[in-house]
Amino acid sequence: MLPIGKTTKQGKRGILERLDAGEIVIGDGGFVFALEKRGYVKAGPWTPEATVEHPEAVRQLHREFLRAGSNVLQTFTFYASEDKLENRGNYVAEKISCQKVNEAACDIAREVANEGDALVAGGVSQTPSYLSCKDKAEVKAAFRKQLDVFMKKNVDFLIAEYFEHVEEAVWAVEVLKESGKPVAATMCIGPEGDMHGVPPGQCAVQLVKAGASIVGVNCHFDPDTSLETVKLMKEGLQTAKLKAHLMSQPLAFHTPDCGKQGFIDLPEFPFGLEPRIVTRWDVQKYARKAYDLGIRYIGGCCGFEPYHVRAIAEELAPERGFLPEASEKHGSWGDSLSMHTKPWVRARARKEYWENLKPASGRPYCPSMSKPDGWGVTKGARELMQQKEATSEQQLKELFQKQKF
Amino acid sequence: MLPIGKTTKQGKRGILERLDAGEIVIGDGGFVFALEKRGYVKAGPWTPEATVEHPEAVRQLHREFLRAGSNVLQTFTFYASEDKLENRGNYVAEKISCQKVNEAACDIAREVANEGDALVAGGVSQTPSYLSCKDKAEVKAAFRKQLDVFMKKNVDFLIAEYFEHVEEAVWAVEVLKESGKPVAATMCIGPEGDMHGVPPGQCAVQLVKAGASIVGVNCHFDPDTSLETVKLMKEGLQTAKLKAHLMSQPLAFHTPDCGKQGFIDLPEFPFGLEPRIVTRWDVQKYARKAYDLGIRYIGGCCGFEPYHVRAIAEELAPERGFLPEASEKHGSWGDSLSMHTKPWVRARARKEYWENLKPASGRPYCPSMSKPDGWGVTKGARELMQQKEATSEQQLKELFQKQKF
Amino acid sequence: MLPIGKTTKQGKRGILERLDAGEIVIGDGGFVFALEKRGYVKAGPWTPEATVEHPEAVRQLHREFLRAGSNVLQTFTFYASEDKLENRGNYVAEKISCQKVNEAACDIAREVANEGDALVAGGVSQTPSYLSCKDKAEVKAAFRKQLDVFMKKNVDFLIAEYFEHVEEAVWAVEVLKESGKPVAATMCIGPEGDMHGVPPGQCAVQLVKAGASIVGVNCHFDPDTSLETVKLMKEGLQTAKLKAHLMSQPLAFHTPDCGKQGFIDLPEFPFGLEPRIVTRWDVQKYARKAYDLGIRYIGGCCGFEPYHVRAIAEELAPERGFLPEASEKHGSWGDSLSMHTKPWVRARARKEYWENLKPASGRPYCPSMSKPDGWGVTKGARELMQQKEATSEQQLKELFQKQKF
Amino acid sequence: MLPIGKTTKQGKRGILERLDAGEIVIGDGGFVFALEKRGYVKAGPWTPEATVEHPEAVRQLHREFLRAGSNVLQTFTFYASEDKLENRGNYVAEKISCQKVNEAACDIAREVANEGDALVAGGVSQTPSYLSCKDKAEVKAAFRKQLDVFMKKNVDFLIAEYFEHVEEAVWAVEVLKESGKPVAATMCIGPEGDMHGVPPGQCAVQLVKAGASIVGVNCHFDPDTSLETVKLMKEGLQTAKLKAHLMSQPLAFHTPDCGKQGFIDLPEFPFGLEPRIVTRWDVQKYARKAYDLGIRYIGGCCGFEPYHVRAIAEELAPERGFLPEASEKHGSWGDSLSMHTKPWVRARARKEYWENLKPASGRPYCPSMSKPDGWGVTKGARELMQQKEATSEQQLKELFQKQKF
Repeated sequence: MLPIGKTTKQGKRGILERLDAGEIVIGDGGFVFALEKRGYVKAGPWTPEATVEHPEAVRQLHREFLRAGSNVLQTFTFYASEDKLENRGNYVAEKISCQKVNEAACDIAREVANEGDALVAGGVSQTPSYLSCKDKAEVKAAFRKQLDVFMKKNVDFLIAEYFEHVEEAVWAVEVLKESGKPVAATMCIGPEGDMHGVPPGQCAVQLVKAGASIVGVNCHFDPDTSLETVKLMKEGLQTAKLKAHLMSQPLAFHTPDCGKQGFIDLPEFPFGLEPRIVTRWDVQKYARKAYDLGIRYIGGCCGFEPYHVRAIAEELAPERGFLPEASEKHGSWGDSLSMHTKPWVRARARKEYWENLKPASGRPYCPSMSKPDGWGVTKGARELMQQKEATSEQQLKELFQKQKF
Repeated sequence: MLPIGKTTKQGKRGILERLDAGEIVIGDGGFVFALEKRGYVKAGPWTPEATVEHPEAVRQLHREFLRAGSNVLQTFTFYASEDKLENRGNYVAEKISCQKVNEAACDIAREVANEGDALVAGGVSQTPSYLSCKDKAEVKAAFRKQLDVFMKKNVDFLIAEYFEHVEEAVWAVEVLKESGKPVAATMCIGPEGDMHGVPPGQCAVQLVKAGASIVGVNCHFDPDTSLETVKLMKEGLQTAKLKAHLMSQPLAFHTPDCGKQGFIDLPEFPFGLEPRIVTRWDVQKYARKAYDLGIRYIGGCCGFEPYHVRAIAEELAPERGFLPEASEKHGSWGDSLSMHTKPWVRARARKEYWENLKPASGRPYCPSMSKPDGWGVTKGARELMQQKEATSEQQLKELFQKQKF
Repeated sequence: MLPIGKTTKQGKRGILERLDAGEIVIGDGGFVFALEKRGYVKAGPWTPEATVEHPEAVRQLHREFLRAGSNVLQTFTFYASEDKLENRGNYVAEKISCQKVNEAACDIAREVANEGDALVAGGVSQTPSYLSCKDKAEVKAAFRKQLDVFMKKNVDFLIAEYFEHVEEAVWAVEVLKESGKPVAATMCIGPEGDMHGVPPGQCAVQLVKAGASIVGVNCHFDPDTSLETVKLMKEGLQTAKLKAHLMSQPLAFHTPDCGKQGFIDLPEFPFGLEPRIVTRWDVQKYARKAYDLGIRYIGGCCGFEPYHVRAIAEELAPERGFLPEASEKHGSWGDSLSMHTKPWVRARARKEYWENLKPASGRPYCPSMSKPDGWGVTKGARELMQQKEATSEQQLKELFQKQKF
Repeated sequence: MLPIGKTTKQGKRGILERLDAGEIVIGDGGFVFALEKRGYVKAGPWTPEATVEHPEAVRQLHREFLRAGSNVLQTFTFYASEDKLENRGNYVAEKISCQKVNEAACDIAREVANEGDALVAGGVSQTPSYLSCKDKAEVKAAFRKQLDVFMKKNVDFLIAEYFEHVEEAVWAVEVLKESGKPVAATMCIGPEGDMHGVPPGQCAVQLVKAGASIVGVNCHFDPDTSLETVKLMKEGLQTAKLKAHLMSQPLAFHTPDCGKQGFIDLPEFPFGLEPRIVTRWDVQKYARKAYDLGIRYIGGCCGFEPYHVRAIAEELAPERGFLPEASEKHGSWGDSLSMHTKPWVRARARKEYWENLKPASGRPYCPSMSKPDGWGVTKGARELMQQKEATSEQQLKELFQKQKF
């Protein structure tokens, strides 16, 4: 067995130092989904006011990811732009300002990062301002407001993530580059490309040209689909003779039945996704496939729990030379079952067993795939979306009665 | 909307006061499974040394259950009998004594219980001593050792849980009754009864006669199967003209394909159970069904996460008159989706939607049910089990090659 | 390879001679379902006027079953009692009398039986008269009318089949026994017993006491469930120290989700049953299991096509010493694929391959099991049924809107 | 209700007269699969010697398709080229010459066609000669041999069907055009195109240029996939400004999981396809979709039974103005259930019911999709295929042990 990795509290090397040296960097998992299940985040708004309201819960989750092997702790600042927090105002206590939320997020991440060999990454994501057609200056201003906090708190690097439109992602990268810190950029798109139809390869090219050193995808699609998208990005960069590190942080849900806009359109989103949750073995396969594809920044997004991140670290332990701390409580490939009293359970303490298992759902009255909602109305992207937003409740009711979606 | 329940920090009423008054008592969820995923418990041994090694992680999970609505915090002392910890000795640092683990568990549970309206229950579970045919005195001594800690730490009441053999459960109840505190007893059996073939009704009668004030089931089977078993217990008590409160703490996994020994025999146990995880809506149905059956102590076991417990509290909020704290971050029946930008997601903000959803697994290459392992060799219970334990690895290999199980 | 069985056109031995000698007797398959798909029978009425309207189609199907190995050709007289034909009058041309239908059925069966080693069995089934509470005399008169034809046409033996109520089945057997010919009796019940709750063991006892030499089940349930029922019948006879030959003619549909009244309540009945159709390999397993259970009259009912009957004959060829004629066009266990151009298709020419295949449905949007309709209203059997029949269309509509069933 | 269609025994109009007039022409179904189940065709060779051995069985199947609404009876000459019959020589009695088989096929088809309003089409399909790289002259000679029979027997028109390589299909069309009769050409390809990678649109263009008046697809893929392919053909013709009638004769199996070479690679082929069989309602949807796409020659291939063809005729009855004869035994959309004694079965007598039913498989231990065999080795088409054919049994065994396919 490989040794448990020693934590290095001082002299941490930066994200690019690591990646340039060919090291594997393990990302963290999905905060909003994990904390929703723990009772600290509200599905729908998905805002991170917990950094102020319940810092101990956020700290604990960071710590679990660190123990599981994460080399990066992202500040819990998802949807924490001022416009978003205002937009979801009714959910957030008024006294919790955007700045407070972002600052607290940075402090908590840094505190836990100091417990091990992890970097702190400040993150921005897509804004309501862009979706409601605010101009470039206004959208950039929103990102800059968050960046100010990240600079004040001196995060190690920056991530622009969860963008459906490459145009907005580029704006975000441009703002983040002003800081002089390394910038990673991931989009929540599939192989069909962004919501305006820009294909993944072209998205990657634009992001790198805007200044991103690391590009890839996060959220919206399952590991397999996400890797397919990153592969297209890689090919796009090669064709354009551009260099960048690759990154993937997919869902921990199986979504072979997704349409272009990903898992949000699946009828199970967000409260019936349980049967789709990936196993640790699915994650090991994903980690291996990602590595083989040349991706070196490998993490997860919604649905990724600490044990999923540990699975990345265990799969790539031979390459990295060590196991994460949390592997003290985990035998690789079911090894810890080898002492079970039942021989048929002992017999599960083997790699081949778990690798080949086709796990049953226990749900014989349920199908294995769903038709995404909103099909046929998802074309024309943002324009249509906005028109849809204008749909009155009465119209909505009628549409349903006609079973239009 | 119902008010969020006020926490009562002083003058808490005891478990029997509450149940005798017809109140609903909400249990907590499954510690070993939740902490395994968080990186603090090892699957296989499933022992609770985390109370000493990582008290903050245990504390945080208790707190999440409390916020979710739990009225009882069980000390995290599962499999914490001295013989079990020794048996799993290679996993537990030698310096962590059985006593330390149990004491720390009590302290943490009490600390969090004091943050709200929850009682602390000290728990004992089945012992390796019984399975290896140690005599009654020896088995009872093991329980007494844990009880000593519970008395020193002055827990509010006691639970004997996770027993496959009613004989051992009766011994446990007898020991716990020596304390003078109220005793609850739950067995991990299904409608077919205990491993010696004692039917559920008779198990319940024996437990009540031994002194249990609350009887029921926990673990090993899904909510539906568990309720079926409790129903048989209820009928057994009625026939015997005995009175006791009913309790259920099932798995949060769908297991319609279980055999007599429950989910451990399923090929997916314990690392491929994800597709079987119940949704919050499944839990609401379970809570309602349990309530209608006359069960008033309603909780969960392995797989139950904080949001599952919250679902019990939300379903029974009309009866209880209030919602749990964690409902500040949850709209009942998907209500929080009503402001989503996509109309088809907004349309999911309705009870009928989630109630009727048949969630897809996203796994078209997997079946919906599994054949339990070890079928045909599960008869004769303990005798056979022990013979099986003696099976050499060579014999095991041969058995597999012959596809005997 | 075993030889193809020689047909014996003369000196055929009777059904009891064969069974008493320990021989396997292979029944035929399901006429109404097969001919519905061929365009000669109407689903709903399911009446056999095709014997008069399209004798060539009926003859051809008989011939296919004979070639497949059937030792018994049942006259196509299902639902051919006068009351039934009248009841369904609007479907049957008025000029086609009950007598004509029955006579033609006998003639066709005899003609084909003479082409090989098969016996002709005249069959009666449950009557509308019984369901509408006509008295014993009247119901018996209906059977006697059909029997008159069978006697005139000199069938080899008689079968009372497809009875949901043992009382009516006993009446049928009593009538058929008047003929002096051997009588077989099968009920369309499952392990829960007949519609009045008489368990299978007791049904078998009553039928044998009434004069049946062969008892068992047909239709309504899949092979596994049917064999379970016959097993209960066997045990009932053993307990009562009665002797009789056992017979099974199940559905060729997988119906693990059936309720007490069988596949008619399944939402897929009768026009969406395709995904449930059993494979030839399923049938081979059924034949072996039936044989091992001591059943010697082994056939099929609705859904059984000629190739399914051939599968019985092939599975039991070692015991019988020969293969059926139709095996000239079938390699056992996929043997005929051994010359395929693709190596992976050649690799399917093995018993293990087909035995272990878990065939996919190709329907990822469909579940694997259904909830039977009419649940919760199926108690109280006939009484309730009749009340239901009185349900007005308006009431029916309302019930559906309330989703009562 | 629409009238049952009158049969027109004299003065039949030709295939092009009908199609040019915008009429719908209904094809027939799959002979080799239907007759395999009836016991007259051997899976593997799939040769049509039954025309000589058991003409009554072939005649009966033709008659059922005619009654179901077929306007074309294809001669049962599938795989009846001399090289194929010789290649499969061990299966075919030596005395049955290629010529006899083809002549008998023509006679039987004509006899039945004369019973109604149907045309006789002589069919040729791909040859072993082509696959083993015989030259153009030799391959064409094989087609010409069959054509000689068709001319002698004066069939109404000709079909070149079941071609995987457009090159061979073009050769077939060129030979058939020598006759002066109308020629239809269908390939057994999917949207990815032929085995050399020629896309469907280009295949269609080549076939029309070679002289085909009707082009499309048959076999290998399910209705949805087949229609997708025909759509690509249609677009190819439009781009090339060529005109031709469109035709589709897909499988009656759901095959969403097929690879490029279609259902033969699916692990269930050919003896475990039952759960994939399409319902009559699936066929009605297919017929409507085909019609809406502009296809006017609509039939089926393997798996299509007479009731499937009737479903085409019933769906398009409003456009055609009449129902087929077999609809005398079929109420549209379950109408014949309206008199059932059980109200919940009566409630199934509605279009909405069957249209929306998601039929369960009754197979909870089976998946919904399969991985095709031979993946990863299917590239490079024929070259690789031939190399594969050369694979020794020993190599094959080793490949399997390594689980390469």
